[in-house]
Amino acid sequence: MSVPDNHAPRNNTDATDLPTGFRYAGVTCGIKPSGKPDLSLIVSDQPVVTAGVYTRNQVIAAPVVLSQKRTPSASIRAVVTNSGNANACTGDQGMQDAAQMCEQVAELIGCSAKDVLVMSTGIIGKPLPMDCVQRGIGDAYSQLASDHDSFLDSAEAIRTTDKERKTVFHRLDFGDRSFQIAAMAKGAGMIAPNMATMLSVILTDAPLTPEVAQTSLQRATDSSFNRVSVDGHTSTNDTLLLLCSGSGAPLDGQELETFQQELTAAAIVLAKKLVADGEGASHVMAIQVHGAEDEASAELIARTVAASPLVKTAVTGGDPNWGRIVSAAGYAGAAIVSEKITLEICGTTIYSKGSPVHFDESALSKKMKSSAEVAIVLGVGDGPGSVEYWASDLTTDYVEFNSEYTT
Amino acid sequence: MSVPDNHAPRNNTDATDLPTGFRYAGVTCGIKPSGKPDLSLIVSDQPVVTAGVYTRNQVIAAPVVLSQKRTPSASIRAVVTNSGNANACTGDQGMQDAAQMCEQVAELIGCSAKDVLVMSTGIIGKPLPMDCVQRGIGDAYSQLASDHDSFLDSAEAIRTTDKERKTVFHRLDFGDRSFQIAAMAKGAGMIAPNMATMLSVILTDAPLTPEVAQTSLQRATDSSFNRVSVDGHTSTNDTLLLLCSGSGAPLDGQELETFQQELTAAAIVLAKKLVADGEGASHVMAIQVHGAEDEASAELIARTVAASPLVKTAVTGGDPNWGRIVSAAGYAGAAIVSEKITLEICGTTIYSKGSPVHFDESALSKKMKSSAEVAIVLGVGDGPGSVEYWASDLTTDYVEFNSEYTT
Repeated sequence: MSVPDNHAPRNNTDATDLPTGFRYAGVTCGIKPSGKPDLSLIVSDQPVVTAGVYTRNQVIAAPVVLSQKRTPSASIRAVVTNSGNANACTGDQGMQDAAQMCEQVAELIGCSAKDVLVMSTGIIGKPLPMDCVQRGIGDAYSQLASDHDSFLDSAEAIRTTDKERKTVFHRLDFGDRSFQIAAMAKGAGMIAPNMATMLSVILTDAPLTPEVAQTSLQRATDSSFNRVSVDGHTSTNDTLLLLCSGSGAPLDGQELETFQQELTAAAIVLAKKLVADGEGASHVMAIQVHGAEDEASAELIARTVAASPLVKTAVTGGDPNWGRIVSAAGYAGAAIVSEKITLEICGTTIYSKGSPVHFDESALSKKMKSSAEVAIVLGVGDGPGSVEYWASDLTTDYVEFNSEYTT
Repeated sequence: MSVPDNHAPRNNTDATDLPTGFRYAGVTCGIKPSGKPDLSLIVSDQPVVTAGVYTRNQVIAAPVVLSQKRTPSASIRAVVTNSGNANACTGDQGMQDAAQMCEQVAELIGCSAKDVLVMSTGIIGKPLPMDCVQRGIGDAYSQLASDHDSFLDSAEAIRTTDKERKTVFHRLDFGDRSFQIAAMAKGAGMIAPNMATMLSVILTDAPLTPEVAQTSLQRATDSSFNRVSVDGHTSTNDTLLLLCSGSGAPLDGQELETFQQELTAAAIVLAKKLVADGEGASHVMAIQVHGAEDEASAELIARTVAASPLVKTAVTGGDPNWGRIVSAAGYAGAAIVSEKITLEICGTTIYSKGSPVHFDESALSKKMKSSAEVAIVLGVGDGPGSVEYWASDLTTDYVEFNSEYTT
């Protein structure tokens, strides 16, 4: 399904507008039995500032163990990614394989292996077919190019069960200088049997210091990738990278503020694409919570509403079932003021000041069913805490897909 | 579905063995359009020690607001319960209606209204049809009796969407004196559209002080009703009561310890019946976690594994998918030792010391599919924390039932 885009970049760029300094390739090396592209390589001609945000799961895939030690950095030269195999729960062999992927890339482009990052996504618990991977890295290196099609090839080769390739392009104009943001992502939590990983790479030619890049990426993540859920299952491989190729004076003051807004907007677009493409999703739930004690409370309430199978199935069925939403808010663990609870679905108020209000149930149900994005606006008091959160609904397709016997 | 009972009482009592001092009735008063029994009354001839444990939801139904102020107590005389209407989110009218139910019972049996407890379960947000309720209380009072059939009538009248009536009977022999425990329960979280409430009443003629009764009930709850989940959605009406009619020296020392074990065992039997009867459930997952840092950590890990839709659907499909279980443990938020993780499903070890091990996948899948209860035993380190937790799986029946348009 596709999703209406309330967070579209303010300046949609022309397809050829990519940040300067990067080359891309995506190839088929044979990891996936389907024969679809499965190896992606992004190379920078110069060392670039790079920030990373990784899974909080304590069971961590080998490529995450390796990459997270290497960011933030001012000297990254490449990101190599394979799909079809997560290289997770693969022990010492997995660590050696991840290291070898970096070493091979480093040799080809002439840099230290510690300046190469690696990501993997796909089946858990199987060793990487390193002969395929090695051939793929060689092929990808020979095809590196800076054009738009090569960027898309690279984005294509990180997909697993994604129904759509996920990219976003933003442009920043600061009068005397302008910058690009180009980003790709795959996945939506652990959406498929034995498949893990949300991966995303955001490229820009804006100049940032490593520390500012790391802070900016974490801020963007907190309002985007950390505010979406499909099934609430945190994978072993989640990796989000920000590579900044820009030279010149690092962004500061108002320019940095604008960059942060655009970076966050780009991350939100990608995050919503993950939800819309979530396994079996028939609707995106866009959940706004306001009036909470603080932002953390608002987020906890939104996450609890988003995770409730009863709320999810109500949205699936087009059922404006305020009881499920209000009671989910009540057990989230954050303070709420029962007599001040208000609830709107798709713009219709159905609960106000702690009591149900009369509304046209049939009309609202029809509207919910026909909306790709169902807006749920929940007031829980008079506090300053508010948040927006996105989640998929829960369908029989999800259950059927995930209960198929696959081992 | 029915469930194998690993926590069967050590002494299954004869059906006529009920605690002394109580009379029961269950009648049809017309709250439910189906015409099924919907009003239950339990009366004690003497004031009894009573403890209560209630929902932690901040959105609390009127009967819970009222009952929780009245326990623990040494002077309770009756519990009146209606099904078909939860009297939740019903404002001041709901509070008046709950109070009036207690007043009517108090007048009939000749006691103070504050010595009557009230429970409600069913649709949220609709006012109670008080004419039906009043007629029902009158009818129930006139039918009160101490025989086994009357107890079952009472248990029958608290059901909503339960497929089975849920009761359990235990007997304690202490040489010179013996006691009975008889208990009833309904529901399994918020299992149905607009239906709320797990309700349970445990009756005994063992003598306990109010404080000891409260502590014992909380301890039993922590190992039973607080360790089950169907959909993780805490209702607005959950109420669990323990009524102790015994006279003589209150239990103490070894007798009290034995009583606690039997009470907990009875609560576990009921809690597992809730899970087995969970909406759409095709298997019970019996999740044991051991080796955690402490019991709270073990419980958090078990609850996270139990709540994962990916784990639930794997069990539905008979898929021994260790990746989903191990990664769920990894994001639970409690410390684990990755390289010491072990996992058994239905007695077969499939993951050991942090690595997958070879096993007969087809045989294990067949065993999972044919087991009403799928045992998942997860070791996460060398710590002393262990726990047992029960949950239902996730089926297309659950999604279909809960996504039907009902408002």
